[in-house]
Amino acid sequence: MVGGAAGSFIGPVHRMAAELDGVIELVAGAFSQDPERSRQAGASYGISAERAYANYEEMMERERKRQDAIDFVCIVTPNHLHLPVALAALEHGFHVMSDKPATATLEEAYALQEAVRRTSLLYALTFTYTGYPLVREARQMARAGALGKIRKAVVQYSQGWLSGSLEATGHKQAVWRSDPAQAGLGGAIGDIGVHAFNLLEYVSGHRVAEICADLSSVVAGRALDDDCNVLLKLDNGAPGVLFVSQIAAGDRNDLQLHLYGEKGGLHWWQEDPNRLELNWIGKPSQTLHAAADYLAPSTRLDFRLPMGHPEGLVEAFANIYRDFAVAVRSRFSDAAAQLSDIVPGIREGVRSMTFVERAVVSSRSRAGWVGLPR
Amino acid sequence: MVGGAAGSFIGPVHRMAAELDGVIELVAGAFSQDPERSRQAGASYGISAERAYANYEEMMERERKRQDAIDFVCIVTPNHLHLPVALAALEHGFHVMSDKPATATLEEAYALQEAVRRTSLLYALTFTYTGYPLVREARQMARAGALGKIRKAVVQYSQGWLSGSLEATGHKQAVWRSDPAQAGLGGAIGDIGVHAFNLLEYVSGHRVAEICADLSSVVAGRALDDDCNVLLKLDNGAPGVLFVSQIAAGDRNDLQLHLYGEKGGLHWWQEDPNRLELNWIGKPSQTLHAAADYLAPSTRLDFRLPMGHPEGLVEAFANIYRDFAVAVRSRFSDAAAQLSDIVPGIREGVRSMTFVERAVVSSRSRAGWVGLPR
Amino acid sequence: MVGGAAGSFIGPVHRMAAELDGVIELVAGAFSQDPERSRQAGASYGISAERAYANYEEMMERERKRQDAIDFVCIVTPNHLHLPVALAALEHGFHVMSDKPATATLEEAYALQEAVRRTSLLYALTFTYTGYPLVREARQMARAGALGKIRKAVVQYSQGWLSGSLEATGHKQAVWRSDPAQAGLGGAIGDIGVHAFNLLEYVSGHRVAEICADLSSVVAGRALDDDCNVLLKLDNGAPGVLFVSQIAAGDRNDLQLHLYGEKGGLHWWQEDPNRLELNWIGKPSQTLHAAADYLAPSTRLDFRLPMGHPEGLVEAFANIYRDFAVAVRSRFSDAAAQLSDIVPGIREGVRSMTFVERAVVSSRSRAGWVGLPR
Amino acid sequence: MVGGAAGSFIGPVHRMAAELDGVIELVAGAFSQDPERSRQAGASYGISAERAYANYEEMMERERKRQDAIDFVCIVTPNHLHLPVALAALEHGFHVMSDKPATATLEEAYALQEAVRRTSLLYALTFTYTGYPLVREARQMARAGALGKIRKAVVQYSQGWLSGSLEATGHKQAVWRSDPAQAGLGGAIGDIGVHAFNLLEYVSGHRVAEICADLSSVVAGRALDDDCNVLLKLDNGAPGVLFVSQIAAGDRNDLQLHLYGEKGGLHWWQEDPNRLELNWIGKPSQTLHAAADYLAPSTRLDFRLPMGHPEGLVEAFANIYRDFAVAVRSRFSDAAAQLSDIVPGIREGVRSMTFVERAVVSSRSRAGWVGLPR
Repeated sequence: MVGGAAGSFIGPVHRMAAELDGVIELVAGAFSQDPERSRQAGASYGISAERAYANYEEMMERERKRQDAIDFVCIVTPNHLHLPVALAALEHGFHVMSDKPATATLEEAYALQEAVRRTSLLYALTFTYTGYPLVREARQMARAGALGKIRKAVVQYSQGWLSGSLEATGHKQAVWRSDPAQAGLGGAIGDIGVHAFNLLEYVSGHRVAEICADLSSVVAGRALDDDCNVLLKLDNGAPGVLFVSQIAAGDRNDLQLHLYGEKGGLHWWQEDPNRLELNWIGKPSQTLHAAADYLAPSTRLDFRLPMGHPEGLVEAFANIYRDFAVAVRSRFSDAAAQLSDIVPGIREGVRSMTFVERAVVSSRSRAGWVGLPR
Repeated sequence: MVGGAAGSFIGPVHRMAAELDGVIELVAGAFSQDPERSRQAGASYGISAERAYANYEEMMERERKRQDAIDFVCIVTPNHLHLPVALAALEHGFHVMSDKPATATLEEAYALQEAVRRTSLLYALTFTYTGYPLVREARQMARAGALGKIRKAVVQYSQGWLSGSLEATGHKQAVWRSDPAQAGLGGAIGDIGVHAFNLLEYVSGHRVAEICADLSSVVAGRALDDDCNVLLKLDNGAPGVLFVSQIAAGDRNDLQLHLYGEKGGLHWWQEDPNRLELNWIGKPSQTLHAAADYLAPSTRLDFRLPMGHPEGLVEAFANIYRDFAVAVRSRFSDAAAQLSDIVPGIREGVRSMTFVERAVVSSRSRAGWVGLPR
Repeated sequence: MVGGAAGSFIGPVHRMAAELDGVIELVAGAFSQDPERSRQAGASYGISAERAYANYEEMMERERKRQDAIDFVCIVTPNHLHLPVALAALEHGFHVMSDKPATATLEEAYALQEAVRRTSLLYALTFTYTGYPLVREARQMARAGALGKIRKAVVQYSQGWLSGSLEATGHKQAVWRSDPAQAGLGGAIGDIGVHAFNLLEYVSGHRVAEICADLSSVVAGRALDDDCNVLLKLDNGAPGVLFVSQIAAGDRNDLQLHLYGEKGGLHWWQEDPNRLELNWIGKPSQTLHAAADYLAPSTRLDFRLPMGHPEGLVEAFANIYRDFAVAVRSRFSDAAAQLSDIVPGIREGVRSMTFVERAVVSSRSRAGWVGLPR
Repeated sequence: MVGGAAGSFIGPVHRMAAELDGVIELVAGAFSQDPERSRQAGASYGISAERAYANYEEMMERERKRQDAIDFVCIVTPNHLHLPVALAALEHGFHVMSDKPATATLEEAYALQEAVRRTSLLYALTFTYTGYPLVREARQMARAGALGKIRKAVVQYSQGWLSGSLEATGHKQAVWRSDPAQAGLGGAIGDIGVHAFNLLEYVSGHRVAEICADLSSVVAGRALDDDCNVLLKLDNGAPGVLFVSQIAAGDRNDLQLHLYGEKGGLHWWQEDPNRLELNWIGKPSQTLHAAADYLAPSTRLDFRLPMGHPEGLVEAFANIYRDFAVAVRSRFSDAAAQLSDIVPGIREGVRSMTFVERAVVSSRSRAGWVGLPR
């Protein structure tokens, strides 16, 4: 693991998720550039002192030589380090599991895509919400045509935790997210907008072809956007809207996907992730429940508990890790292809960075619609 | 009543709502231009044959001369007749209660505004959702600053009933709504977009200052829009999004308002109208329930039943009629001003037609943002 | 109307409901035994002074002689007057629409049953919740075997409005409900327990065969029960539980029915009456929505608005009145039988009073189970 | 771990929960009495072959002599083995974490209580639902008097998975639960009724003083109860009802607690565990959300993710394990007392077995109320 020292929110979540099924173990890390902080973090994760490094390149160098070397590197740093750490890992021959977004800019994303291609190593992005079983069920349904042709999409991701100027208080999570040097081009759009964008493309099976964006910095003095509203067209011409906010006061982590086809609509809400709502034209509405017998066989493998026993974000995260671990262990040459079928990778990383960059361009110019290259 | 013969959805609703409190009685009507259909409609409403007219001008002419003349005219025709009927009523000295939208075009709305001003008669628009007590409570709260400065607005109105080409089957409601000659400039945006727009301005106390709209005709062969997605800015600079659809397959009548301020967010959903949700920063969420003691005194007068006994759309409608009847009966010179404080009138009619016209312009040009005059 | 003067909750609701469809008109009443209060109530209902009587017998006597006499009497007094007023009405040849419970005691209910039989007049009880369209849909489904054999029933009715000693403050509704001389044998069980009991039998198509009850007076100084918990067996042996309370602090009007069969469960909640939830074994859950095309044809006639436009208690009430009016007008000899098929009458009145009486007996003896005669 | 071989539902859940925070590691087990099955289970848990025993006594004997011996034994067998395994563990000097119920009969529970007392070792019962943070918040609130005096309690636990005769198909979970020799005295009441009972006492701070129970075997041929409805009185005289079912067709794992005091009601639903609803008299309802700042400090330590990121049953389970691990490691003499303050132990084990035994007695006799000793 690179990153994840005290104060990190996502580091411990990666650890829990990775280890949940007993098939992955966190054994080494460069948790902080401060040797003492890294050592302390290592101890908190139960890692021997010698494998708690203060420098990720040192970690890779030394781990590479061990018999019991790490199999892959997990990146949980602020955004600006995603690229250099990922490149170093690939160059040292390690697969990469990276937190989103892939990189801080689109240009960096292309560079990383090239490196992944060149090394033929596995690269996965924790677009966590794609690990929820019912999101995967929705994806299967939508792609199999259960809704008919997709005609409209609404995706929302709203949070309220940046309603105040939290960064001014020194809050670690808020500080780096609101600093362009660490967060990159996008504020809310880079932090959570990419989740919304990815979820839409992941489930619908369509690409966003055009957008018209309005990004705002609502809280005074904030350099990056904290509220984003986007009109969009899918590649089949269907209209839609995507809106994300980190100043939606009182909202928690309100990610919603609404997808409408010719026959009905599909509705999923991250805060109640164990239900998938389907509204049909001329027929009663349906609710699919987590772990039910009637779900697709592949979906059912994504549950660890029987019906009515809530599973949450850690399990969704763990599904991504489990799929990644299966690919890492696989000896078959198509492991990477199989993985990329279900787990977002560098392709989705480039897509989402394209979205961020084009949204910033569209919003700045106030000139209306801009296209997204396929 | 003008309009409302067999096949009308909204005519009988107006009748029920108007008469609910026992202070208004439907006694005359020009329900259809077909004398026989008008007579039948009159009979179904319990009206004497002599007062079931086939022509609204004849109705006004003859009613004006009766001792027991009607006090006001209620307009429930397709949109293109709203203006001529309203003008005729005002000219004959009758107050007007009109179904929305005020007129078929913005130009017509200005003409009507002028006539209302000239005659000093009462004119109210049944933006029905403003009659829900908890919408009025939300309005009071937002305007009194309970949320702090408004920072973001989301308003959604989605229906699925036009997912198929219902107009091709001869369905009366669908036929006129999809015919520009009868519906006017806007399809979904004129039919339900104006509700969403009005609700936003009504509750927030802010005007929409700029919009950037995308209107689509999703169902093949449809001349008017059936899906609309709009970025917006309030007059205080707050960003927002408004989206409406009549091809959101499986949705029923899904009108939602989400308003975020500095302190918290306010959420109201028309399909569960007896709850008002408030999410606060740093405090537990609250739900206000219909008919509760802790609501504003004026709100409590809008309920007819105690807590937990659901009231619905007819009661919301009836609140508007009751407020209108109070103004009609009032001898005080400020009755019109008092009414316009709580019940939308021609000012809101002009606002909403401006919105429709500007949205059509913005969408056609694909040129980004357009301003709305105050 | 007998009863319903100022301070009455249910009188105005009966008026609104009766008149909602324009086929019934309130034209006379003995609203109070105080002539002045009766006259004032009459005026508030828009009734001519001469038909606002101070005495129900006088009303019946005088109305009987009018050309435009009333067709039926509606009883909205406290419980202890239900029997004498109903008997007088029947004796004067008027049909009767009575608020629940039928009478104050079981003995009285038998007497009334005898009078109804003897006069062959129509008698209906406003077990209001049976007027909700989705309750009627549930009834049809359950009786048609959609759930398979019924195996378990849970019915709950909880309110919190008597959590304090409201009767000590002179609150009119609370005073008579807590006075055995006016309310009869039961407190909460007579006031709302009978609704719960009736709803269970109405929907399930089964009779309650045995009960074991625990009635409490939780608020100090209260003579009648304010909280009741009852074990039960249906006539097919299925177990169940019924619990009602008026000291469930914070609850509003929380009536719920849960019915389980071999194939699935059916769930209806009065505070969200426009949804009917069905959970199936091995299949996705379903939600039936008000006014949907897929409901039974008879159910669809019970709606006045399209999908997604909430209807509430007044409309449920109005359905009962409308069915009653149809029977009153019918010239067919089986009108009474047809009515009793869908609207509760004296049979259900006797059933519910039997339930109250047996529950009181069971609770007092603490001796376990008691049977209910068929 | 004793038990938990292939086919076990709860074994893997214990493993995940115990290891979630990285402070406990599963290192040895007697997973099955079949050596091969035990070895395979061990391998699936990542345990070395030499520590996958076929006999729990052998495990304890051999582990006791190791330098790196286990610290405690976790029991996940069918109910009839709970006592012998727990006794053996205590005799070998190991602390015990046992799945519920404590034992198969009340007599056994007393024996176990005596052994715990004698050895002064730690003993905890995974009444899992007590590990949910908002259940603990509810407990603090109720005990601190936030609701005022408790006046009514409703607790429901309904499942539908035994609606068919699943045991006849050889389904492992169903077979042992429906076999008195393995499950003990109670069917549904022993399996999930004890959860409901414990949750009620845990949160309310009151003991159940009297019950009147009705236990049924609804599915033909079933020896033990599969549906139970119970009237109850708390030790302060407050009435209540507890009902559990495993034949509530279509229900998943529907555990609900409703607690009413003088000031308001508290509502928690296991299938949406990250919300705690509070309805107050005369004030807006409140919802407390998981991980919110305004929760009690101790509650906040029970979350691993920020607001809006769902946590589920595994995390609730893990909280119990974490509290247990803290006590195991503690050198302070009051560790056991501190643990028993928050985590159910043998005292609650005896209470719940008393409840099962008394419920069976009450139901068989049909003689009404029976007391529960303090």
